[in-house]
Amino acid sequence: MRPRSVGLEDLGKVAPAFAKYTEGPLLGELWQRSDLSPRDRSIIIVAVLIARNQAIEMPYYFNLALDSGVTPTELSEIVTHLAFYSGWANATSAAAITKVVFAERGINELPPETGERLAIDEAAEAQRAARVEQDAGSVAPGVVRYTSSLLFNDLWLRPALAPRDRSLVTVSALIASGQTAQIPYHLNRALDNGLTTAQASEMLTQLAFYAGWPAVFSAIPVFKGVFEKRSE
Amino acid sequence: MRPRSVGLEDLGKVAPAFAKYTEGPLLGELWQRSDLSPRDRSIIIVAVLIARNQAIEMPYYFNLALDSGVTPTELSEIVTHLAFYSGWANATSAAAITKVVFAERGINELPPETGERLAIDEAAEAQRAARVEQDAGSVAPGVVRYTSSLLFNDLWLRPALAPRDRSLVTVSALIASGQTAQIPYHLNRALDNGLTTAQASEMLTQLAFYAGWPAVFSAIPVFKGVFEKRSE
Amino acid sequence: MRPRSVGLEDLGKVAPAFAKYTEGPLLGELWQRSDLSPRDRSIIIVAVLIARNQAIEMPYYFNLALDSGVTPTELSEIVTHLAFYSGWANATSAAAITKVVFAERGINELPPETGERLAIDEAAEAQRAARVEQDAGSVAPGVVRYTSSLLFNDLWLRPALAPRDRSLVTVSALIASGQTAQIPYHLNRALDNGLTTAQASEMLTQLAFYAGWPAVFSAIPVFKGVFEKRSE
Repeated sequence: MRPRSVGLEDLGKVAPAFAKYTEGPLLGELWQRSDLSPRDRSIIIVAVLIARNQAIEMPYYFNLALDSGVTPTELSEIVTHLAFYSGWANATSAAAITKVVFAERGINELPPETGERLAIDEAAEAQRAARVEQDAGSVAPGVVRYTSSLLFNDLWLRPALAPRDRSLVTVSALIASGQTAQIPYHLNRALDNGLTTAQASEMLTQLAFYAGWPAVFSAIPVFKGVFEKRSE
Repeated sequence: MRPRSVGLEDLGKVAPAFAKYTEGPLLGELWQRSDLSPRDRSIIIVAVLIARNQAIEMPYYFNLALDSGVTPTELSEIVTHLAFYSGWANATSAAAITKVVFAERGINELPPETGERLAIDEAAEAQRAARVEQDAGSVAPGVVRYTSSLLFNDLWLRPALAPRDRSLVTVSALIASGQTAQIPYHLNRALDNGLTTAQASEMLTQLAFYAGWPAVFSAIPVFKGVFEKRSE
Repeated sequence: MRPRSVGLEDLGKVAPAFAKYTEGPLLGELWQRSDLSPRDRSIIIVAVLIARNQAIEMPYYFNLALDSGVTPTELSEIVTHLAFYSGWANATSAAAITKVVFAERGINELPPETGERLAIDEAAEAQRAARVEQDAGSVAPGVVRYTSSLLFNDLWLRPALAPRDRSLVTVSALIASGQTAQIPYHLNRALDNGLTTAQASEMLTQLAFYAGWPAVFSAIPVFKGVFEKRSE
């Protein structure tokens, strides 16, 4: 697995210690750890790179994701998802890279969408909508309206990406961009969507390396609170 | 209005759902909503891009701002303003793009400055300075001194950008970079500078799309607190 | 000292006020202030640029750091350090720029490492490990394990960068990326590692310009808390 846009040999010349950490702990250990598959690990990194708009590293990791079992449709949908969760310009930049990656791999067209939508949990959605209306309805009615119509009654119901993977993308992007206040809702949603506690925990290990230790240490107490509340 | 560096047709090939959301909700609805003019909306995006150092999308949106009624002097002043509010390197990168955009539009020189300064509200400034001195004077005397001399007795008094627009830029940059703790002071200042509550609320709708939903959901309770305190 | 990738003359055409602020307060004053050497100031900026992945400005400031007394080995080690504290992709991007800068300066190889490690303060490390185990052990055991083995019993003991400089890099990166919750531990560590209170205070002045006023104003109350607790 080649994890960088700079080859290991070049890296060894300018930052030999960094090359050593990359060869050993990162490639030799982290990617082999259980609880998260290489596919999951690559999805996490793709989310980090788009959330932080780190275009230089995208070609390598987008290819790695496609090599690890992420389908072109899923990669395209991750970009679409992060338009809403990281910002339109982040997704546009990522789409430009995706175009190049697809062209290099001879992917000329994505399979047509069927227009089908996943079933919605009406009770949970009513509860979510009521809470957001109460918290934000008077302050940001436009946001509240689009949150319902575009996000939870449309984007999240699109079958192009499994809800569990969509949650993995969302929580990774929140941690990578330091939006800790939004983690509790989305971590709970991730666990409801089938992410296991062990996978959520291992997501933090993967993110320590790829989003940096401080972002993960800021997320840990929030994860702890969510885990404890759910085990009550 | 073309909102992206990647053409809609290309976008439709790699991320058809993203293209659809761009054509419908974004271009077909958001930009036509009342309470904020296209000029205001373009100022918000320029601030987001500079705050996040997203150079790839700058040429398109800087042109869009100039096409929407932002003058070259105002664009130049937004860059200058964000040197202080986003960091010197963010502004330098933006200045390099501005240079290219100006050259393409045949803008060779900006009108000379008159050297005039806007009138200062002495009482409000004395109150601000006293509060900052109390909070930060012992910890960061250099910062406190430059905050008075460079920011509030110089930059904010420059007539090249209306105080209301300067506030729009500042609050947008704070939300885009997750600096929620600094929002209360600057949102109050924005409202004092003539931004209406309806405009501030609609700013959140625009930012949901361009800075991402999580950044806006972190800002909403802070906006709510400011709105409530002012209506007491 | 030339502080920007855009020459001052060009800057004067597109953003004359920004050029004026750069010539006066920034170059004419900030860099001449006491309490931090130009070497320290350049280390702070290198950390900000890597933490924010601002590649465009890196070549200039990496050269400036090397011209200000930072050795190639130290620059290489700052990149390595920030792989852990800002994220692997940030460091990889920075390594690619470092490669170009080293090549231009004819630096073909770094002196070999001796393999020596700095002495560890066993008591302090045991205390740190116990606290992290208690806070995070049940939630993120992988992170906890790597924090001990890779960070505090390996990276921080590498002699390629003095602990005091390593702390300067870490705290600067935390402020630049808005990770205020992680400041108390690392500011205390910085002061334990020999950074003086006056230097820490002046770091905030340097960061106001280079990371932006809001990032620094969010850090000030945290610095104040640490200073007060230590003076009790």
